[in-house]
Amino acid sequence: MAFMPKQTNVVCCDEEGGRVLVAKKTEKLKVIPLGGLNEIGKNMTLFEYGSEAVIVDCGVAFPEDDMLGIDLVIPDFSYCHKIKNKIKGIVLTHGHEDHIGALPYFLKEINVPIYGTRLTIGLVESKLREHNILNDVNRICVNAGETVHLGRNFKVEFIHTNHSIADSAALAIKTPVGTVVHSGDFKIDYTPIDGEVINLRRFAELGGEGVLLFMCESTNVELPGYTMSEKNVGKMFERIFEDTPDSRIMVATFSSNIHRIQQILDSAYKHDRKVAVIGRSMSNVVKTAVDLGYLNLPKNTLIDITETRRYEDKQVAIVMTGSQGETMSALSRIAQGDHKQVEVKPGDKIVISASPIPGNESSVNKLINDLLKKGADVIYEGLMDVHVSGHARQEEIKLLHALLKPKFFVPVHGEFKMLKTHAKLAEDMGMNKKNVFVLGLGDVLELDRSKARISGSVPTGAVFVDGLGVGDVGNIVIRDRRHLSQDGLMIVVVAMERESGRIITGPDIISRGFVYVRESESLMEEAREVVREALDMCEERHITEWTYIKGLIKDTLKDYIWKKTKRSPMILPIIMDINI
Amino acid sequence: MAFMPKQTNVVCCDEEGGRVLVAKKTEKLKVIPLGGLNEIGKNMTLFEYGSEAVIVDCGVAFPEDDMLGIDLVIPDFSYCHKIKNKIKGIVLTHGHEDHIGALPYFLKEINVPIYGTRLTIGLVESKLREHNILNDVNRICVNAGETVHLGRNFKVEFIHTNHSIADSAALAIKTPVGTVVHSGDFKIDYTPIDGEVINLRRFAELGGEGVLLFMCESTNVELPGYTMSEKNVGKMFERIFEDTPDSRIMVATFSSNIHRIQQILDSAYKHDRKVAVIGRSMSNVVKTAVDLGYLNLPKNTLIDITETRRYEDKQVAIVMTGSQGETMSALSRIAQGDHKQVEVKPGDKIVISASPIPGNESSVNKLINDLLKKGADVIYEGLMDVHVSGHARQEEIKLLHALLKPKFFVPVHGEFKMLKTHAKLAEDMGMNKKNVFVLGLGDVLELDRSKARISGSVPTGAVFVDGLGVGDVGNIVIRDRRHLSQDGLMIVVVAMERESGRIITGPDIISRGFVYVRESESLMEEAREVVREALDMCEERHITEWTYIKGLIKDTLKDYIWKKTKRSPMILPIIMDINI
Repeated sequence: MAFMPKQTNVVCCDEEGGRVLVAKKTEKLKVIPLGGLNEIGKNMTLFEYGSEAVIVDCGVAFPEDDMLGIDLVIPDFSYCHKIKNKIKGIVLTHGHEDHIGALPYFLKEINVPIYGTRLTIGLVESKLREHNILNDVNRICVNAGETVHLGRNFKVEFIHTNHSIADSAALAIKTPVGTVVHSGDFKIDYTPIDGEVINLRRFAELGGEGVLLFMCESTNVELPGYTMSEKNVGKMFERIFEDTPDSRIMVATFSSNIHRIQQILDSAYKHDRKVAVIGRSMSNVVKTAVDLGYLNLPKNTLIDITETRRYEDKQVAIVMTGSQGETMSALSRIAQGDHKQVEVKPGDKIVISASPIPGNESSVNKLINDLLKKGADVIYEGLMDVHVSGHARQEEIKLLHALLKPKFFVPVHGEFKMLKTHAKLAEDMGMNKKNVFVLGLGDVLELDRSKARISGSVPTGAVFVDGLGVGDVGNIVIRDRRHLSQDGLMIVVVAMERESGRIITGPDIISRGFVYVRESESLMEEAREVVREALDMCEERHITEWTYIKGLIKDTLKDYIWKKTKRSPMILPIIMDINI
Repeated sequence: MAFMPKQTNVVCCDEEGGRVLVAKKTEKLKVIPLGGLNEIGKNMTLFEYGSEAVIVDCGVAFPEDDMLGIDLVIPDFSYCHKIKNKIKGIVLTHGHEDHIGALPYFLKEINVPIYGTRLTIGLVESKLREHNILNDVNRICVNAGETVHLGRNFKVEFIHTNHSIADSAALAIKTPVGTVVHSGDFKIDYTPIDGEVINLRRFAELGGEGVLLFMCESTNVELPGYTMSEKNVGKMFERIFEDTPDSRIMVATFSSNIHRIQQILDSAYKHDRKVAVIGRSMSNVVKTAVDLGYLNLPKNTLIDITETRRYEDKQVAIVMTGSQGETMSALSRIAQGDHKQVEVKPGDKIVISASPIPGNESSVNKLINDLLKKGADVIYEGLMDVHVSGHARQEEIKLLHALLKPKFFVPVHGEFKMLKTHAKLAEDMGMNKKNVFVLGLGDVLELDRSKARISGSVPTGAVFVDGLGVGDVGNIVIRDRRHLSQDGLMIVVVAMERESGRIITGPDIISRGFVYVRESESLMEEAREVVREALDMCEERHITEWTYIKGLIKDTLKDYIWKKTKRSPMILPIIMDINI
């Protein structure tokens, strides 16, 4: 910033008139999305005011198809490091991976207190335990309706919402320049399983008090109408259990969808079935949810999978992970005939209670086909309404906009096209185009009580997690993996006396992922001949510069292989220095 | 077959009473799907009767995500080779890649005449030209309504249908045991662009004459209701051209959808715009379609892309490939700012007139986001009805079933779950479950006038095409590519005197796609140390067995790397034999 006005300390009161906040006259609120924009996943937003900052959510993204070998993608924390001493804490909207999954990586680098509702904190705790940092982290449970103070400038109120995980919250973040409402992930469910409709009254009140900025999720903003109630799925389960008097019933769904699991348990209990839960994450979540009282276990219903053998098929229901066709999940293993405890048999009724997340369509289709081939009766979305989304559609989103009547609006949580559609929705509802900001990752939105503008940007992006490594796999490594995955590689080894350039042994050619060598012996033999000729030429001309020789091997072989096969394997020339 | 009854020559007449066919009393018709079942693509069906055989379609499939580096997948022709002398010809239903794409590969191995409608043959010809075999192949153009004789036992009638490519046909294959109707790909369009509704009367007549076997496509069998008419898309184009008085308009669609292109041309002409066509396959198809009269070029409408510069934006429309987000296609390049002739600018209206083919959802989404980021106004399915499918939905499929009233039914052209749904649809319409056969690839369905049964199977499967190689990339190569793509590789090179086992140089470690080495120097140095220790141990104990030493290097390094990084790169130990 070229121009920096003189700052004056002033005393100002917040809207509730009670607490006195000290701010600087020219101080502005900076809102910086570090994830969750132009992409699905790794939600993270930074709010910075003077010498204090607060983070909302800290999630992971799952790797895209071309991020070969990557396990997880987390936000780039480098700007957080820069303002590390300002950060008063991380506030969590709910316990989904794309909102809490990057916490262990963040907290190992920057240890600050975390705030969330009871179930959210419970899920975070089992995550921190896995990373062996549970005891190092300060965790604060907050009930919906409560407000927590982070530093002197941030007061964060948790507002109950509906979503596909229990105990989800929107946040009203009160700052010296005004109130920011962050929707978290939400839908409006008038008949939710836990009985608590999203707190619309509170949104209305906030609208009355004045909302400076609304940040609202955009997942389903392209879809017209309303998302159905979770209770509808329960009715379908009732029908399925009713219609399946004799066979085993298996249901695959998202492990975190506790209300879905509750409904399966209830139907099973009603129809005298025992329920076994399989899949590591499913078992973990069920345990946490039961411990914290978010899942009501009907008496004598839950059994271990090993016990199912003692019951008839009609007495058993199995709940599991794998609704996305993930390779290592319970249901995929079962479909492959590769699960230790469960084998599909003709007549089994298998319900896939989920939609394929974009990108997973093919693997889900494969899963369904494999199960059908084994004779199972598979019920999936499209055949029956066995899934509803956890995200608000257009009419629900409009309701929040109408209640809050914000001065400024930033669509979040969605691909660019969704953010654009959401911006247009806000404009169609009467917002001034100038007050709507479609931000990019790292953009800094600067606000005071009356104005907002994009004032710059901070470094941001994606950091890859591969095994134990965080950030050690970058673009070069991924590019190499991509190259290797397309045409494999050829290694040329030569042993050479460095001084004279005399070839001691070789060239030998080894290939992997290129062609099946036994069937292409002559090709490989000719390739070797071509390289040998190039090397002979070097020897004759007394060329001893290794870089040159390596380049020559590479180019010669590359041309030859392309001509013969129209393929471009990676070519790795290796020269060994032999001193005799 | 254990039991083989004595065969007697008999004379029998076909339904039309005219032509006398010589058959053997116990001779049966064999129907063998060699592709197009349990999968999308590479449609191919073999009909065998006595000493004669006919093939319907010969298509490619596009590689699935896990077929790394593969360009195309074609059917396994090995059974065809076995009965090569029986094959009288290949009959083509229409000119889509999944029905004609494997022809060049087949015809290079087994040269037989091909039969198809004029446009289909036209498209095949440009394909054969690319493969330099055009003049070697006997091509026969057939009009809808005509019947061709293949051998003495097969008479194939072409029946006009509607589909997303012009000149599509269903086939009535008359054999000594009865008539087989093959739907090809179809929809029922009462307002088709070429004015010709699918020949429902002929289907009704065939039903009256008696249909032994109906083979019907299943692409959209999971969807209720009817597929909309192609004309609906034209109305949308009208609206888009109407609403876009000033900006450039670009439309991406499937190159083979000539009726779609016709409608774009018509709208452009009406609104005084010139049209440029870009993308190699789009240009090829347009040329063929114009030459054969399937595309009516409004006067002075088509211009070269280089000429567009001479016109204002409002005078230009561009038609192109790339509606699936394919990396090298025109629209993807444009979105990447990587196209030589076209650059997107804010205000451009871009219409993606297609649905994402399953598996392409993510790349299409990425494409839309990239174009929006460049400021273009992008219209895609979901925002407006700018696409209709070329495939029949449930009610249309039921209509054909009702008209044909076949004795036996085989659902084709679809994933297993679609075939199952289609079988159920037929049963719901009153077919006996025993007369409905959900076949697997290579299954042999044997029919006589009254009975049908699966009598065995022939070898079949997928053959990979990679560059010039057909079938030289098998499962081992793909498995290696997959391994390389996940964690990259480490190469360990050692120069050794074979006799003594003395190490001359090394071990050196080279890695690619594993970690970025400059940041992991100590890891690589330690890895080298670990291998060196293992080698020293071998030298001390005078172990000179190379297989053992290689195994030891591999295991030692693998354990070490897994412990340190939780990754499993491919490890390639190379020992060079040095004789001093």
